[in-house]
Amino acid sequence: MQESLVLLSGNAHPALAKKISEKIQVPLGEMEVFKFADDESFCKINVNIRKRDVFVIQPTCRPVNDNLMELLIIIDACKRASARSITAVVPYYGYSRTDKKDQPRVPITAKLVADLLTTAGANRLISIDLHAESIQGFFNIPVDHLYALPIFIRYIREELGTKDLVIVSPDAGGVARARAHAKRLGAELAIVDKRRVGNQDQTEVYNVIGEVKGKRCVLIDDIIDTAGSITKAGEVLKERGAKEVRAMVTHPVLSPPAIERIEQSPLEEVVVTDTIPIPPEKYSKKLTVLTVSELLAETIKRIFYGESVSSLFV
Amino acid sequence: MQESLVLLSGNAHPALAKKISEKIQVPLGEMEVFKFADDESFCKINVNIRKRDVFVIQPTCRPVNDNLMELLIIIDACKRASARSITAVVPYYGYSRTDKKDQPRVPITAKLVADLLTTAGANRLISIDLHAESIQGFFNIPVDHLYALPIFIRYIREELGTKDLVIVSPDAGGVARARAHAKRLGAELAIVDKRRVGNQDQTEVYNVIGEVKGKRCVLIDDIIDTAGSITKAGEVLKERGAKEVRAMVTHPVLSPPAIERIEQSPLEEVVVTDTIPIPPEKYSKKLTVLTVSELLAETIKRIFYGESVSSLFV
Amino acid sequence: MQESLVLLSGNAHPALAKKISEKIQVPLGEMEVFKFADDESFCKINVNIRKRDVFVIQPTCRPVNDNLMELLIIIDACKRASARSITAVVPYYGYSRTDKKDQPRVPITAKLVADLLTTAGANRLISIDLHAESIQGFFNIPVDHLYALPIFIRYIREELGTKDLVIVSPDAGGVARARAHAKRLGAELAIVDKRRVGNQDQTEVYNVIGEVKGKRCVLIDDIIDTAGSITKAGEVLKERGAKEVRAMVTHPVLSPPAIERIEQSPLEEVVVTDTIPIPPEKYSKKLTVLTVSELLAETIKRIFYGESVSSLFV
Amino acid sequence: MQESLVLLSGNAHPALAKKISEKIQVPLGEMEVFKFADDESFCKINVNIRKRDVFVIQPTCRPVNDNLMELLIIIDACKRASARSITAVVPYYGYSRTDKKDQPRVPITAKLVADLLTTAGANRLISIDLHAESIQGFFNIPVDHLYALPIFIRYIREELGTKDLVIVSPDAGGVARARAHAKRLGAELAIVDKRRVGNQDQTEVYNVIGEVKGKRCVLIDDIIDTAGSITKAGEVLKERGAKEVRAMVTHPVLSPPAIERIEQSPLEEVVVTDTIPIPPEKYSKKLTVLTVSELLAETIKRIFYGESVSSLFV
Amino acid sequence: MQESLVLLSGNAHPALAKKISEKIQVPLGEMEVFKFADDESFCKINVNIRKRDVFVIQPTCRPVNDNLMELLIIIDACKRASARSITAVVPYYGYSRTDKKDQPRVPITAKLVADLLTTAGANRLISIDLHAESIQGFFNIPVDHLYALPIFIRYIREELGTKDLVIVSPDAGGVARARAHAKRLGAELAIVDKRRVGNQDQTEVYNVIGEVKGKRCVLIDDIIDTAGSITKAGEVLKERGAKEVRAMVTHPVLSPPAIERIEQSPLEEVVVTDTIPIPPEKYSKKLTVLTVSELLAETIKRIFYGESVSSLFV
Amino acid sequence: MQESLVLLSGNAHPALAKKISEKIQVPLGEMEVFKFADDESFCKINVNIRKRDVFVIQPTCRPVNDNLMELLIIIDACKRASARSITAVVPYYGYSRTDKKDQPRVPITAKLVADLLTTAGANRLISIDLHAESIQGFFNIPVDHLYALPIFIRYIREELGTKDLVIVSPDAGGVARARAHAKRLGAELAIVDKRRVGNQDQTEVYNVIGEVKGKRCVLIDDIIDTAGSITKAGEVLKERGAKEVRAMVTHPVLSPPAIERIEQSPLEEVVVTDTIPIPPEKYSKKLTVLTVSELLAETIKRIFYGESVSSLFV
Repeated sequence: MQESLVLLSGNAHPALAKKISEKIQVPLGEMEVFKFADDESFCKINVNIRKRDVFVIQPTCRPVNDNLMELLIIIDACKRASARSITAVVPYYGYSRTDKKDQPRVPITAKLVADLLTTAGANRLISIDLHAESIQGFFNIPVDHLYALPIFIRYIREELGTKDLVIVSPDAGGVARARAHAKRLGAELAIVDKRRVGNQDQTEVYNVIGEVKGKRCVLIDDIIDTAGSITKAGEVLKERGAKEVRAMVTHPVLSPPAIERIEQSPLEEVVVTDTIPIPPEKYSKKLTVLTVSELLAETIKRIFYGESVSSLFV
Repeated sequence: MQESLVLLSGNAHPALAKKISEKIQVPLGEMEVFKFADDESFCKINVNIRKRDVFVIQPTCRPVNDNLMELLIIIDACKRASARSITAVVPYYGYSRTDKKDQPRVPITAKLVADLLTTAGANRLISIDLHAESIQGFFNIPVDHLYALPIFIRYIREELGTKDLVIVSPDAGGVARARAHAKRLGAELAIVDKRRVGNQDQTEVYNVIGEVKGKRCVLIDDIIDTAGSITKAGEVLKERGAKEVRAMVTHPVLSPPAIERIEQSPLEEVVVTDTIPIPPEKYSKKLTVLTVSELLAETIKRIFYGESVSSLFV
Repeated sequence: MQESLVLLSGNAHPALAKKISEKIQVPLGEMEVFKFADDESFCKINVNIRKRDVFVIQPTCRPVNDNLMELLIIIDACKRASARSITAVVPYYGYSRTDKKDQPRVPITAKLVADLLTTAGANRLISIDLHAESIQGFFNIPVDHLYALPIFIRYIREELGTKDLVIVSPDAGGVARARAHAKRLGAELAIVDKRRVGNQDQTEVYNVIGEVKGKRCVLIDDIIDTAGSITKAGEVLKERGAKEVRAMVTHPVLSPPAIERIEQSPLEEVVVTDTIPIPPEKYSKKLTVLTVSELLAETIKRIFYGESVSSLFV
Repeated sequence: MQESLVLLSGNAHPALAKKISEKIQVPLGEMEVFKFADDESFCKINVNIRKRDVFVIQPTCRPVNDNLMELLIIIDACKRASARSITAVVPYYGYSRTDKKDQPRVPITAKLVADLLTTAGANRLISIDLHAESIQGFFNIPVDHLYALPIFIRYIREELGTKDLVIVSPDAGGVARARAHAKRLGAELAIVDKRRVGNQDQTEVYNVIGEVKGKRCVLIDDIIDTAGSITKAGEVLKERGAKEVRAMVTHPVLSPPAIERIEQSPLEEVVVTDTIPIPPEKYSKKLTVLTVSELLAETIKRIFYGESVSSLFV
Repeated sequence: MQESLVLLSGNAHPALAKKISEKIQVPLGEMEVFKFADDESFCKINVNIRKRDVFVIQPTCRPVNDNLMELLIIIDACKRASARSITAVVPYYGYSRTDKKDQPRVPITAKLVADLLTTAGANRLISIDLHAESIQGFFNIPVDHLYALPIFIRYIREELGTKDLVIVSPDAGGVARARAHAKRLGAELAIVDKRRVGNQDQTEVYNVIGEVKGKRCVLIDDIIDTAGSITKAGEVLKERGAKEVRAMVTHPVLSPPAIERIEQSPLEEVVVTDTIPIPPEKYSKKLTVLTVSELLAETIKRIFYGESVSSLFV
Repeated sequence: MQESLVLLSGNAHPALAKKISEKIQVPLGEMEVFKFADDESFCKINVNIRKRDVFVIQPTCRPVNDNLMELLIIIDACKRASARSITAVVPYYGYSRTDKKDQPRVPITAKLVADLLTTAGANRLISIDLHAESIQGFFNIPVDHLYALPIFIRYIREELGTKDLVIVSPDAGGVARARAHAKRLGAELAIVDKRRVGNQDQTEVYNVIGEVKGKRCVLIDDIIDTAGSITKAGEVLKERGAKEVRAMVTHPVLSPPAIERIEQSPLEEVVVTDTIPIPPEKYSKKLTVLTVSELLAETIKRIFYGESVSSLFV
């Protein structure tokens, strides 16, 4: 396999790339990726990739535009260097929340990014828990869409148990995702519903739909950004008598003041994955990080050998 | 306007096209659309459309593939006949529920259809209540996405009033849509959640999340197909003490045995729109049909004159 | 070969697919292809096709639009499931007679279909006796265009003999095709020429150009649709003294009232191929069906192994 | 009109361009088109064409590749100079006879040329009597396909009369074209059929299908190249007793030794059009040249004003 | 004009956009362009742009990737909001120096950016002094390429005079650019040629080709980045006896330590344009900034009215 | 290797193709490439190329348009005949000097040609010393850009020695190229600068920038066309006291009166390569021809085996 499979990593998440490389037992291809003095990104691949299948590992997390442009540039370099195929491995797909035009004269950036990747020369995308599943349809190249769900399910089963468990969606939009977890675990479902009341729409009222009293609640979401909604949801659940509240969220975007909010919240634990690197200043005792590196390593291997990826999720 | 705006209608919904034509005061362009003896569709446009802005009105409802192919053929004919622009007016966008790959080796037909329309030569799409808003991103041509919500809101306000009103989502996936209606009306929200229990997954249990006792429930959905879920939801709501239950659904697909189910259900009324024609054999006293023709006519006019369409929804 | 060659069949002609599968000794890949209650087509491929060469067998015969859409959907699913290559095996290419704009503001549907197939993701087309050879040029993907001619020639040589044989074109447009058969068999050529006379163009007059008296005539055509022209041609040839008249036509479209006409006509025999399935209600003693399955099986094998297909016709 | 309609002419046929310019009363746009010392073609347009509708008049006749490349270069220059639309006016479409793959591993150059024109930036094609009508389908831009038929019909009616007239196709492939003329004139149809006989296929035998004795024959074809077939057909018709034989052919390619053959043949007259320039050394008393300049001028005007072109042929 | 011409500005250079807007007397269209907490860029256009010609003013200077992505997003929003045309006004085209593959396995980012702009939906580019003129050919949309040369020439004529003037290229690659200025001014030409000598290539030696003693030298370049080469060239020219040395450079990238170097150098003056904003911390007494706003305003007006842009440079 | 690597040659340079074939030990694939009587090019490949990697050797030298069109046609035939990959081997890339729009309303033909090659179906380009390196960016397919520099360097080292050597650029535009040679050889650099003086721009004055007195000058350029500039540069260098003057130029276009000029010039020797065939009438004692066939053969082999091509130039 080593011969014709090449793993490359931009600057977005070298730690994850290294883990994948170790699991797959293929060294990371040597490459320089840096910015010139004038702030322009550049890359130079130092290993032959002609007729090789290249996998470029790069979540498009903060700094989003730099990481995205870096990814596009690496893909362009691979294309011009005669790679046989180029797979963009983007565990966290930035801009995924701008996936529709819900107000006039705004972009659909998630689609734009799909077109940019294809234009640059990507032949395939691997991603995890896309904010909207329809984003797969933004591409005409194959998308291997992976789920963190089995990782979370295993963690719940092994670490928490399913007794008195209620899976909670922190808002109306995420009910389907919470529903899928509840179904797998045979757990109950609840929803935290935020709305504004009064003439000037200025007071927010939180409503919990479903039974949570005396329960162990697990809030499920795909992205934790400033952590405003999820920590507020945690408070509301506690007020309604929840015994304990946890959050399990795939992508730890963790924009300020997320960590402060988490630490001050009644949330027992926030379980995330390593699709996005968490810098030292964001470490918190409440954070548990599960790795997606095995999932990605296994997926890359199966793609390379032409084996079924979907059977990973049976 | 008459000069360079051309309205064409395939065989899918001539009644709607006629209404639009009357409201916009532009006659329908003469066109033959038919099948040859060998089942192949064909069209011949009998008015000059050179340098004209053509709007082709054709929901892709049953017979889905015939209506879709007819639409593609008309667009191809318009393109080759030198139309200045071609707008596909597809009030009901068939295949919209196949908008993601949620199991291995299936198509994303909603995206395929977007590509087919673009390939045939469409320059713009007008549609109403797409099953997933992300479908807008399946296109790189402009999409004017309209909402039936104001039509339903007006009906509720004028005909039903908002006292004791609860807006109900018939399943976990539709909560966001129901949420939008509830917010506009200042009404409460509830959810009917179906799940299977037992060893063989064979018994369905319905759970109502939220308060419905003594309430006037309005189930909100975008598509009513065989009416299984929505009539079952009606029953469940009644069992939980709802005072009355209605359904408001944009697209009346009404596949058998939808009408039987509706008539036998405790649903007081099923309010739909005319995005899809309802053949005489499907008439039911419980059905109320609101027209989208004014909405479409106004949209076509604004597009033609370069006026804002979004301001229609303010 | 079995490893990486996958044969798939839609619902258009499973019997032909089965024959090809047997000859090629590769089982048909398991797949569900069906319509939902709302008339929308869907497919789900149940075997891994990643990095496989997939051949999808689907003539686009009646119901034309359903079969075409089914084909497009299967191709889309194959593309998204990472097939290495996708070959559309379309023995009968529907819409092939709408291959030019011979009146104003009509589509060129044969080209549109070519674009739709390419857009969906087909990498190659295999077809037999395209109505116009130029349809090959509608594609920029390779087209392996096969001929039924050798099958007919062999049948004539083995079953009929070439004594007193005249090859007849049933109209002016098909002369080149008839010419090719006549040349191979060393037979004479004749043409039936239909024209309308009189002020209102209402009386049809049939003219036979060439000698047919006392001859054994074989009418050659690519498509037999309602059988109007060919049975009329048969009558005219008999009137001009032909000893016997047969028809040999590649694609048995056989739209009503084709069978009635054939049975009532003086045609001795109508020889067709199985590019299109013939349902039981269309069986007739006068019909002889020759199979193209060996031709298709051999072609698929050669394509898979990178061998010359054209040498099949030397 | 003068303001925003621009006529340009390459070096292929300035005389025709001048005639069109005079009829349309728009001067030819000033442009230098020439070859550098190294044989590379170049053009420089000396009038502003920004936001103008440009028509580039250039048949792709001998020298074919130079004329074609010149046309592509002019289109590229127009595109980069911000023309609003670019119409390639190609009265004779070179390579039109290479429109299918009738032997293994050959190009379909007529399609390639269509793709080259589109790639360069053409938005529309105007052409006359394409060798195969399906070539229209090689394009996805609008094609205004014109016919010389009315010009020939008028000439026959006015100059020859229709008494005892037989329209003759010089080979099996052109029967449909001859058929259309015969129908319009109410004339009889005949076919000259060439075939080779004997063991080594070395002797050519000509067969006339249809009645020509004592008739005035008009051979109809789209292209007269080396004039081999058509002069031979003339001889054969004379041998079969034709009273007089003429040829009417749209495109006078007239490759050597066409003129010698025509002069030595029993053909009374060869009527052609000026889609291709006839250099002085090819002048012959037997040649009659009818102009297509009015047809082209009228078509350009109608396209520019958005009027129907097809109504030209009613 | 106001009606259908819309000027938009991202965050890259609002001051330049404002100047253009004033000169062209069209207000800047209201638009919000900002980053969400998660570092993702977003825009919302607050004026109707349907059927309008939109010009988006955004040099892709530092922060390069943010400014580029912002530009792409704005273009996407314009496209989906039905703009009639979208012109990217990019006075400084970032990544223009990565315009070729001069080492193995590197990107050609200047081409990639061209493809990204086109993919997003741009219909035209306006730029000034592209680092390589061939970058125009990276686009298939029209490029209006402007020159700062007349602005510099006028400044020299009016402020400096041409007596004893020598135009100097600071390196071998820029000779053609310097040559064009020298020719216009009738001035002499010189070149500073840097090379490394010695075994380890470690000592740099500067050579001046041409006469500079007692002359007034003007170094000409397109981009001043860290100012290393140009200040070194200034020193070398002084050492060779130049009377005074100035630099005239179109694009003031001015990456640190450019300003320090300029201030410590023997350069009398560095004349630049405002294609890139110069933040207050980079102000220097030696810097003279000439504006390109009139040039851009006039160009936008001419494009809008369909007038010649090239005549600006005669 | 022989199995799946196919070498094809058009009519442009069979001698070079033969040399490559011998070095690579793969016979040239049998193919007919010719013109029909009507001047249209045609090709027919007589070996199976299905699933083969095809390399088409064809410099686009004089007759430029014929050679280019031949190349496009061969590529089209290969694509339709199911080649696995098609590499255009174009040692001399015609039209490379029309690589930018340096005057209004001219084409960028070098880009147009890139698009034509890609449209026809080329998957890769191999070329030598492109006039502008940015032409690589005109392609989105991989370009293997080779340099004749090592061949010239070797020749100088082995045949001439580097004593007193000065590398001279014959004009301002070629300085960078000359610079690269000077650097490799540790030689000095000089430039011949032509300018026009006087009111009517009618007198040409030649200026030599740099020291050439008593030196052995080697003029370096990429293309020698009519040899006007380079022979004039030779004269000027001699006048300035150069001891001897040679020219080394990659592509011998040699348009008349190049040979006369060379023979009458003071140039000792003109060293060129065989990227373009030199017909017997252009033989001259002063011409030395170095072959690029080994370079091309080695490159083709490495591409076929997936080895690094760039390492050829280390």
